[in-house]
Amino acid sequence: MEHRYLENLPLSKAKALLEDHLRSVGFAPKTELLPVQDACGHALKNAVYAHICAPHYNASAMDGVAVKASVTFGASERTPVTLRPADYTVVDTGDPLPDSADAVIMVEDLIDKAGGCYEIIAAVHPWQNVRQVGEDLCMGDMIAPSHTVLTPALCGALLAGGVTGVEVIRAPKVGVIPTGDEIVAPTSDPKPGDIIEFNSAVFRGMLEGWGANVTVYPITPDKKELIRAAVETALRDCDIVLVSAGSSAGRDDYTSQIIASLGTVLVHGIAIKPGKPAVLGEACGKPVVGLPGYPVSAIVVMDEIVRDLVFAAAGKTAPPRQTVSAVLSKKLVSSLKYREYVRVTLGRIGGVWSASPLPRGAGVISSFTKADGLLVVDQDCEGIEAGETVEVRLLREEAELVHTLIVTGSHDPLIDEVADLLQKSGAPFRVCSSHVGSMGAIRAVESGLAHLGGVHLLDTETGEYNKSYVEKYFPQGGVVLKKGVGRVQGLMVKKGNPLGIRSFADVARVRYVNRQRGAGTRILCDYLLAKNGIDPAAVDGYHNEEFTHTAVAALIAAGNADTGLGIFSAAQIYGLDFIPVCTETYEFLVDERYKDDPMVLSFFETLRSDDCKKRLARMGGYVLED
Amino acid sequence: MEHRYLENLPLSKAKALLEDHLRSVGFAPKTELLPVQDACGHALKNAVYAHICAPHYNASAMDGVAVKASVTFGASERTPVTLRPADYTVVDTGDPLPDSADAVIMVEDLIDKAGGCYEIIAAVHPWQNVRQVGEDLCMGDMIAPSHTVLTPALCGALLAGGVTGVEVIRAPKVGVIPTGDEIVAPTSDPKPGDIIEFNSAVFRGMLEGWGANVTVYPITPDKKELIRAAVETALRDCDIVLVSAGSSAGRDDYTSQIIASLGTVLVHGIAIKPGKPAVLGEACGKPVVGLPGYPVSAIVVMDEIVRDLVFAAAGKTAPPRQTVSAVLSKKLVSSLKYREYVRVTLGRIGGVWSASPLPRGAGVISSFTKADGLLVVDQDCEGIEAGETVEVRLLREEAELVHTLIVTGSHDPLIDEVADLLQKSGAPFRVCSSHVGSMGAIRAVESGLAHLGGVHLLDTETGEYNKSYVEKYFPQGGVVLKKGVGRVQGLMVKKGNPLGIRSFADVARVRYVNRQRGAGTRILCDYLLAKNGIDPAAVDGYHNEEFTHTAVAALIAAGNADTGLGIFSAAQIYGLDFIPVCTETYEFLVDERYKDDPMVLSFFETLRSDDCKKRLARMGGYVLED
Repeated sequence: MEHRYLENLPLSKAKALLEDHLRSVGFAPKTELLPVQDACGHALKNAVYAHICAPHYNASAMDGVAVKASVTFGASERTPVTLRPADYTVVDTGDPLPDSADAVIMVEDLIDKAGGCYEIIAAVHPWQNVRQVGEDLCMGDMIAPSHTVLTPALCGALLAGGVTGVEVIRAPKVGVIPTGDEIVAPTSDPKPGDIIEFNSAVFRGMLEGWGANVTVYPITPDKKELIRAAVETALRDCDIVLVSAGSSAGRDDYTSQIIASLGTVLVHGIAIKPGKPAVLGEACGKPVVGLPGYPVSAIVVMDEIVRDLVFAAAGKTAPPRQTVSAVLSKKLVSSLKYREYVRVTLGRIGGVWSASPLPRGAGVISSFTKADGLLVVDQDCEGIEAGETVEVRLLREEAELVHTLIVTGSHDPLIDEVADLLQKSGAPFRVCSSHVGSMGAIRAVESGLAHLGGVHLLDTETGEYNKSYVEKYFPQGGVVLKKGVGRVQGLMVKKGNPLGIRSFADVARVRYVNRQRGAGTRILCDYLLAKNGIDPAAVDGYHNEEFTHTAVAALIAAGNADTGLGIFSAAQIYGLDFIPVCTETYEFLVDERYKDDPMVLSFFETLRSDDCKKRLARMGGYVLED
Repeated sequence: MEHRYLENLPLSKAKALLEDHLRSVGFAPKTELLPVQDACGHALKNAVYAHICAPHYNASAMDGVAVKASVTFGASERTPVTLRPADYTVVDTGDPLPDSADAVIMVEDLIDKAGGCYEIIAAVHPWQNVRQVGEDLCMGDMIAPSHTVLTPALCGALLAGGVTGVEVIRAPKVGVIPTGDEIVAPTSDPKPGDIIEFNSAVFRGMLEGWGANVTVYPITPDKKELIRAAVETALRDCDIVLVSAGSSAGRDDYTSQIIASLGTVLVHGIAIKPGKPAVLGEACGKPVVGLPGYPVSAIVVMDEIVRDLVFAAAGKTAPPRQTVSAVLSKKLVSSLKYREYVRVTLGRIGGVWSASPLPRGAGVISSFTKADGLLVVDQDCEGIEAGETVEVRLLREEAELVHTLIVTGSHDPLIDEVADLLQKSGAPFRVCSSHVGSMGAIRAVESGLAHLGGVHLLDTETGEYNKSYVEKYFPQGGVVLKKGVGRVQGLMVKKGNPLGIRSFADVARVRYVNRQRGAGTRILCDYLLAKNGIDPAAVDGYHNEEFTHTAVAALIAAGNADTGLGIFSAAQIYGLDFIPVCTETYEFLVDERYKDDPMVLSFFETLRSDDCKKRLARMGGYVLED
C-alpha cells in the first residue's frame, strides 16, 4: 500500500495562487441582458443613464384644476377670483398639464359656483402643484455606475428613466459533482457501507445563498475516466466546477490527477483544519475545486475559497463576515501546522458573549448545526487560554443568539420536546441545549455560561439527588433548584435479552458501553459498580464513553456493546429490552439572576403543560408527580 | 367636485387592527412537502427526528486495515506484532468494518512485510479510528424543532439522519395588481400623460428579497368591475394581495370600495408620511393591501406593513432592522399629524455618522436610490435640532457606507464619470455624490460632512475663481484646493434659437430657469444680471430654481422656460443650442485630514487618467489644460 503526502500551503498563499492564475487566464464575470423587472439583485455591467426625464411631461401633483398661474394673481379673501370653465381644466394627480397651463389649484381650495365656475381666495405661483419635467430624473443623468448591485428602488428608477433592459453580470453557474463508489442518493434505508450523499445538498444551499445557479450532477463512481468525463461536461455548462470527495491522495482519489490532465493543479493540500485535503485548479479557463469528502472539511473550504470565487464571478464583493467578541470558556490547544476552524456555541450572560468550543470531528455535520459561530485560530497560534477574548464568526444572526435560552447539562430528550412546544407556541426565543453531563451543568451555571442546567446527581452517601451537590458547589448560593421530572434508569439490552442480564452485577461479564465522566449516569454506574464490588478495570468497555442515552442505545443495537445504563425512552426507540435499575430525580439548576427571566418562566410553564405531559407519557419512563 | 377625507390612524393601531383581524379569520402559513435538497431557507412545520443513526454502521475513519484490537495488544518497537492476511481487512475511509473487527490501523503505521503481512509497533484500542454507529446523529434524536429555518448544514444533517422529505412552510404567494388608466408597461418612449408602471417592479424586488413568490398581474384600468375581478383572481391564486394605486379617496380610487365589497376594510388612511393613503383589509381570509400610487409612499407601506405580513406567512420573524446612531446635520421639522420617514444620506467622518436629510417628495424614486438610510420621526415629535443624535435605519450595508467617498457640491456629470471609472477599475469603495451647489460644498467640508466639495465660485470683484472663497470661509486653513477642470458655461436655448437670444442681456425679455441659491451658476447669473443692469425681479422665472444643469436643460427642452445658464454637455444631451458665456474653473475643496486618504488619491488619479479625458472630450465643453 502506498501513501502519498499532500502539500500544506497557508490559506492566503493558496488563495493568491488560485486568484492570480485565474486572472492570468482571463476568468471574468459573464453578462446577460435582462428586463429591468428581472434584474433586481444583479450587478450592472456598465453605468446606466436615464433615457428620458421622469416625469417626462409636466404632471399635476394634485387632484384639482390646471390653470395659467397669472389668472389667479391677486386672489385673496377680500378679492376672490372667479375661474370660468375656459380658465381651467380638471386634472387628477399625474395628469398632464394642458399647454396653456402652468399651475394646479387643489380641489380642497375650490369653491363651487354656478355655471361651472369656481371661486378661489388665494393665488398660485407658476409651477405650483406641478411635477415639472425631470423633477425625479433627467435624461442623460447617470442612474447608477458600473457594477452597482440593483436594489428594488434602483430598478424603479431605471424604469422611470425609460430604461427597459440592462446588461448585468449573470449569476455564476456552479456545477457540483458528487463522487464515490460507496455514496448513494438520499434514502431513509441505506445498506451497511452506503454513505448517504448529503454534501451536495449542503453545497447547494451555501451556493444558492451566495447567489449562484447550481447544478448537482449525478453521483459518479470512483472511476477516473467517468469522473473526468463528468468534469468535462460540467466545464462546458458551468463557470465554476466543484468535485466532491476524492480530493486527498488515497488510492481512489482522482480529483487532482483529473484536473492536472485537463488543466492546471495550483494547490493540493491547504494548511487548514478541517479542510486540508483540497485541490485548487483551473481547466478551460475556469476554477475547478476538489472538496474533501468529510462534510465539515468541505464546508470550511467552501466558505474560505469557493465563496469568494462565486462573489467575484457575480461581479460582487462578498459581504463582510459578522463577528462578535467573546470570552473563551475553556482553553483551546491548536496546531502550528494549521489554521484551525473551531465550532463554538455562544452564550450571552451579563452582556458579555462567551464562546464554548464544540468537538472538532470533521465528519460530524451535526456539530455544524449546533454551532453558533466559528473561532478561527491562526496558523501561528499554539492555543488560546480560557478567559481570553476572541473574535467569533457568527453562523447565526446576533439577534437570534441574544434571544436564546441556554439549557445545558445532562442529556434528556424532554428538553428538546419542551423546546419544540415553545417553538410551536410562537415563543420569541429559541432553546439551545447541549449535553455536557450533570457536572458540566454545575460548571456551566457556576461560570454563567447557561441559564439552566439539567442535573440528576446521586449523593451516594444519602441516596438523595442534587441537593447536596448544590450545597457543595454553590456555598454562597446564587442558584435555585427547580423541580423537573422523575425518570427510570435501567440497563438496556438486545431484544430478548440474549445474554440473560438480570441485574447490574451482570455488567462484569458482558461488553459495557459507558457514559462520559461527569454525567449523572456515569456517577450512577460507578456507584452501582462499587455497591456490587466490581472493579471498573475489569469491565470490558468501561472506557467506551458516549454522551447521550440514544448513543448508548445505538451501540447496543449495533452490537458494539451488550449493555449500558440509560433511560427507558432511548431503549424504546431502538427496540431494546430495558431492565429498570432505579428512579432518579432530574432537576434544573437555575442561575438566580435569571429565575424571573421571561424565557426561563416560559420554559417551566411549558414543562408543566398538559402538552408536555402527553409527550412524556408517549415517550415512557417518566414519573410525573407534580 | 367632492372631496372625501381619509382616516389618520397611528401606525401601531393600524397594524394591530390588521393582525388581530387576520388572526380571528385564521390567516396562517401554508405548508408543502419538499425533498430536503429543495428545502433550504424554508421553516419546518414540525420537529424532525433522525430516522437512522449517522453513521448507520461502524465506519473506518482512516485508510488502513481493520483488525480486532486485541490482536495488536502488546505491540511496541521492541515487540512488534505481525499481522497475517487473515488478521486484517484493507479498508478505505468510510468503509464498513467487518463484523470481526473493532479498530483500524492507519496506512501510515503499517510496515510492509513479505507474504502480504504487515508489522506494527503500536497497539490500537477497541474502536480506535472507527466512526461508531451514531457518532454524528442517533436515531430518534430531534434534529431541529418546529419552525426552524433550514440552513445548508441542517439540510445535510437531515439527510444524514435518513430524512428525505420535510413538511415546510411554503413561500407565501403575493399577487401585485397595478391599476390606473394612465399607467403603461415599461417603455423608453412614453406618450405625454403615460405613467410608466415601475412600482410593481419595486414591490417585486422587495417581496422576493423577503422570500415571497410574486405574481405581477397585468395592468388593470380604473374600472371598478375590472379591478374587482383582478382582486378576485389574485385572491384565488395568492396568500396576500396588493393593489397598487387607487388607495386614496379620489374619483378613481376604488381599492377601498372593492375590498369592502369582498370582505372587510380595517384601515383607510394611516398617520404616516409618506404613505398615508393606504388601505388595509381582508377578503377570503387573506390580507388585501391598497398601496399608494406614489412610489416612496408605497415603499414605506410595503416596508412597515407588508414586510411583517410576508414573514409571518413564511413562518418566520422579520430580521431586525440594521441601524446606526448618527448626528443630524441640519434641523428637521416634522408634523405632529404623522410619523415621518425622512430619507437621509450618511457620512462617516472622524468615526461619527452624520445624517443629512434628502428632499421629502413622495413621487421621487431617485431620492430613495440616493438615500443611505431612513430617519423615522415619531408622530409625537415636532422636529429634531441639528446636532442631535438620531437612530437611522440603514438602506445599505454599514460596510458599504464605511467605504464611501463623499463628494458634494456643485453639479457636474464628470463626478459620476469618475465614479464609474473607479467602479470599473475595481476600486474597493463607492462614490456618493450630491448636488448642493458650490456654497453647499463649502458648508459640507466645513462641517466635516464630505471628503471633497466641487466648487466653481466666481469672485465678482477679481474675476478669479474659488481662491478668495476658501480664504474667506477657511481663515484657519484645514482645506486644500485641488485642480479640477475648466468648463464652458453658456445660455441654453431651443434648437435654432427661435427667440434670437444673442447674449446674457436678452435674459430680461424671455422666460428664464434659474439654479438654486448657493449654486456657483446662480452666483454667475446674479453677477451677469448686475453687469447688464437687469433687476432680478424683472426676470420671468428668476424664482424657478433647479438643482442641476440637466434639470435646467430639461425644462428648456420641455418649453417650461426659454433659456437658462448651464454647461455644454447638458445642452448637447437635450439637443439644445448653446451660447457660450464664459469659461470657469471647477475645482475640488479637500478636507486636509483626507488629502492622503486612499479613496481621495484614487479619485484624483482617475480624474487625471486618459480614460477620463476621453469621456470628458466626448461630453464636450471641458477645457483640460492639466
